[in-house]
Amino acid sequence: MTILNQQIILAERPKGMPDTRTFKIVEKNVEELEKGQVLIKTLLVSVDPYMRGRMQDEESYIEPYEVGQVIEGGAIGEVIESKSDQFKQGDVVIGMFGWQKYYAANEKEIRKIDPSLAPISTHLGILGLTGLTAYFGLLDIGKPKKGETVVISGAAGAVGSSVGQIAKIKGARVVGIAGSDEKISYLKKELGFDEGINYRTVKDMASEIRLKCPDGVDVYFDNVGGEISDAVLTQLNRFARIPVCGAISSYNLEEADIGPRVQGTLIKKSALMQGFTAGNYSDRFPEGAKQLAQWLQEGKLKYRETIKAGFENIPSAFLDLFKGNNIGKLLVKVSERQYED
Amino acid sequence: MTILNQQIILAERPKGMPDTRTFKIVEKNVEELEKGQVLIKTLLVSVDPYMRGRMQDEESYIEPYEVGQVIEGGAIGEVIESKSDQFKQGDVVIGMFGWQKYYAANEKEIRKIDPSLAPISTHLGILGLTGLTAYFGLLDIGKPKKGETVVISGAAGAVGSSVGQIAKIKGARVVGIAGSDEKISYLKKELGFDEGINYRTVKDMASEIRLKCPDGVDVYFDNVGGEISDAVLTQLNRFARIPVCGAISSYNLEEADIGPRVQGTLIKKSALMQGFTAGNYSDRFPEGAKQLAQWLQEGKLKYRETIKAGFENIPSAFLDLFKGNNIGKLLVKVSERQYED
Repeated sequence: MTILNQQIILAERPKGMPDTRTFKIVEKNVEELEKGQVLIKTLLVSVDPYMRGRMQDEESYIEPYEVGQVIEGGAIGEVIESKSDQFKQGDVVIGMFGWQKYYAANEKEIRKIDPSLAPISTHLGILGLTGLTAYFGLLDIGKPKKGETVVISGAAGAVGSSVGQIAKIKGARVVGIAGSDEKISYLKKELGFDEGINYRTVKDMASEIRLKCPDGVDVYFDNVGGEISDAVLTQLNRFARIPVCGAISSYNLEEADIGPRVQGTLIKKSALMQGFTAGNYSDRFPEGAKQLAQWLQEGKLKYRETIKAGFENIPSAFLDLFKGNNIGKLLVKVSERQYED
Repeated sequence: MTILNQQIILAERPKGMPDTRTFKIVEKNVEELEKGQVLIKTLLVSVDPYMRGRMQDEESYIEPYEVGQVIEGGAIGEVIESKSDQFKQGDVVIGMFGWQKYYAANEKEIRKIDPSLAPISTHLGILGLTGLTAYFGLLDIGKPKKGETVVISGAAGAVGSSVGQIAKIKGARVVGIAGSDEKISYLKKELGFDEGINYRTVKDMASEIRLKCPDGVDVYFDNVGGEISDAVLTQLNRFARIPVCGAISSYNLEEADIGPRVQGTLIKKSALMQGFTAGNYSDRFPEGAKQLAQWLQEGKLKYRETIKAGFENIPSAFLDLFKGNNIGKLLVKVSERQYED
């Protein structure tokens, strides 16, 4: 039986904000499986801000997408046919096969997940790269101590909301910056953040941070860059640590990203800024995943996810990331499980 | 006998570049010594870029100078009278008593140095805070590995020239950025730097760095900030380390110091920037000083110093720091030893 695959490819490199011209859906038949391969039907795909960077043809920590290439990214699927000894029909697997309905995977590209332990979507979120990014960035670079003040930008996003909760577990005072009163309320009431700042309604960001962080800022987990970060940097304590995780404010800029140079501040405060990606810690993923799963089971770590439906809606879900309206992890459901027990 | 002291005080806070109005020489009698005090006659004073920061009334890692206060800074003197059991006439001592001809010091403010081991001026330079700044900034933050490329701005300065030599000792390839062909020649021929870049004659700094660092930049020891650093940051390798030691390009700016934001680069390269001052490592000074002295004795570490003469010339020597013309450590000789053996 021939199966028709649908794939979303990079149609052209975006200048500034991606739009409908950036992506195209193409169809082609799924190829015959070779020995050691499994056919995966995609269940869920992840849409993430870092993907914007891969659409650009420039050197980075990860290869850029080629024009005409399927948009790679975290995805979960169900094995519907197997020529591998390691996987059987009905297995739920995770990999980087991205925005396509089917994928013929080699054994080494995928990993089995256990749907009985936690909702499978958590493996693309709190138990996946999202949670690991928060975990290693905060604990390995930020190193929050009990009683210290941790400020997080993009705080209601998938990474930011995890960072804040982990900082609370470590005994820090946590202040989240986000873009709506609804998000601030979510951070404080549901996730236990101590304070929140709505950057859209605040007049003077630096004064507001001073007000909400009367003891200064010891750790700034930076998801956004831009003017918000400029303001936070004016309020650092000595020996402050800044894990630099994202700069979403600049991803769609066509002009250069210009602001106050940081050298003077870093010297005055003996402060540290370190860029990172979760991949830097891949040899410690088991440690991180185990700890995150334990906190999740103990109810110490909560998460929210927004799951949109429909393969053809993946590009619009991706574009939503840059509108600053979503709370928590953003996913798209492509199909239902077929072989569920 | 009454001794007339001369002191250089901060007459007014400079806006932009300091000038003759910034300083004033005042005279007053030296007070009678109390028990535990010694009277020091100043031999040598250090003039350093960081002093510019202390002339500003803003929070930093070190207290600002008050208007009317003697300019504090590293200085070496000879004990000419002692009411302390720990010091005797003729002892050579080092302290932070700064720009004045005499100083009645408490025992704890000063430390004896041995003039037979190395020229006394080295204690304000390569064996003092200058050398310790280079040592800890490069080794603790920069962590150069054998074969890596280390780029240094302000490379012919007191700190920069030490950094380059320590990086060579550690087996790195060293590229120095400085402001004249004479300096570049000094770095390459006398100090063993592999390459030099004269920022005053180079047209496109980023291309020049790419040319001189074909394997990219692993460590960038930043003494200057500004456009030179912007350019170096475009050529970082993954996991690059940037000890941020000085930002002399901005110290006399009246406008804001604006340039490309660094977040995007730090993320793409998983790079680290860390501001520091030697004082952060004060508990490890003995280790650093011992190692520097050993390298000096073994001839692995060379230094150059410019010693100007005359107490009244201290302010002009200080202003010379910002003209970018000096090589090595800049000192002013205030008087000769009186009790030399």
